[in-house]
Amino acid sequence: MTNGTHFFSKTSGTREEILESTFHALCEHGYAEITISKIGDHFDKSQSLIYHHYENKDDLLLDLLEYMLEELESQVPLSTQSPRDYMSGIIDEIFEDTDDSNAQFSKAVLELRAQTAHNEEYRELFKRSDEFVRKQIALVIREGNEQGVFNVEQPKQAAALFQTVIVGIQAQQTTDDMDNIGSTKVEFQRYVDQCLLSSTERENHI
Amino acid sequence: MTNGTHFFSKTSGTREEILESTFHALCEHGYAEITISKIGDHFDKSQSLIYHHYENKDDLLLDLLEYMLEELESQVPLSTQSPRDYMSGIIDEIFEDTDDSNAQFSKAVLELRAQTAHNEEYRELFKRSDEFVRKQIALVIREGNEQGVFNVEQPKQAAALFQTVIVGIQAQQTTDDMDNIGSTKVEFQRYVDQCLLSSTERENHI
Repeated sequence: MTNGTHFFSKTSGTREEILESTFHALCEHGYAEITISKIGDHFDKSQSLIYHHYENKDDLLLDLLEYMLEELESQVPLSTQSPRDYMSGIIDEIFEDTDDSNAQFSKAVLELRAQTAHNEEYRELFKRSDEFVRKQIALVIREGNEQGVFNVEQPKQAAALFQTVIVGIQAQQTTDDMDNIGSTKVEFQRYVDQCLLSSTERENHI
Repeated sequence: MTNGTHFFSKTSGTREEILESTFHALCEHGYAEITISKIGDHFDKSQSLIYHHYENKDDLLLDLLEYMLEELESQVPLSTQSPRDYMSGIIDEIFEDTDDSNAQFSKAVLELRAQTAHNEEYRELFKRSDEFVRKQIALVIREGNEQGVFNVEQPKQAAALFQTVIVGIQAQQTTDDMDNIGSTKVEFQRYVDQCLLSSTERENHI
């Protein structure tokens, strides 16, 4: 859903620099193998600065997750577009080409999501973020309903399927080639056209 | 997609007993914290037996993954049912109630899937298993097309969306309550009815 390089392009302070180093160390070594020392290898300044800001590795990784999820939330485009364009934008973002930096970001998110199985704090952060995305999508569908673009009886249900597909694609980016992800995109677009668009909009479209 | 308790109910040899202990240790401690000693805590026999069968922890976890994926593959129901019933069965399995043992299984799969980011062997196993599931679903859709139950131009594309939803729901089972997963199920059923069923089947259905 986002670009790992652009993600840290506006790195502006020590916290962001530490988080960027942590992100790269996480991508390189994985959650199970990451250490403060390995994070230090990606950090231009003294490793002691890391300890000045964070008590330990867990504390730091949790802050990274919070930062990444805030970034994801801020990328949900603003509703100044038409609901139809907004929807196309979301679909393009979900399925955007898995170039290297994108795949890196998805891998890091997947590693951190796996921690929700054993860590209440991770679970709460992901729950909050998932709920945010679902609500935004339901809002767009409701707006589209009002404007006669969509005709969806249960916007919350449609938003729940969107969220599942977002999570699924993120988890598949480490194993699947673009052929499969591209196939999912075409089929999901078919679902949007046939199950969300109003009949008038569908006729205009064809 | 499967039940963690039933999964090991037919435990029949030392390998299976070790794998069952590993599964429970993985569920309890997570991938990052698991050790042979913690696996030993779940194993009734001598810990040295584990070393007799496996070189190290990684070797053992990889065998567990292979065993779990084979189990998943064997659960894809046989095509003796009608394509329509088969499809309902798949949907029920994807979204079955996340009771404790189910959630445990999904958590373990998610932890192992996260390793695909850094481990080629895990990646290959998941790729093979995902491809197997996709092919099975495409096959059922093609059979349904031939029988006039479904009318799907691109069965492979529909199967790709199924696979994404399967992976998404597995990854969501650690963070989402049954309300959200239930909403996704209703919407996905709506997709199947409107985008896969043939028009005659849809009319019979309503």
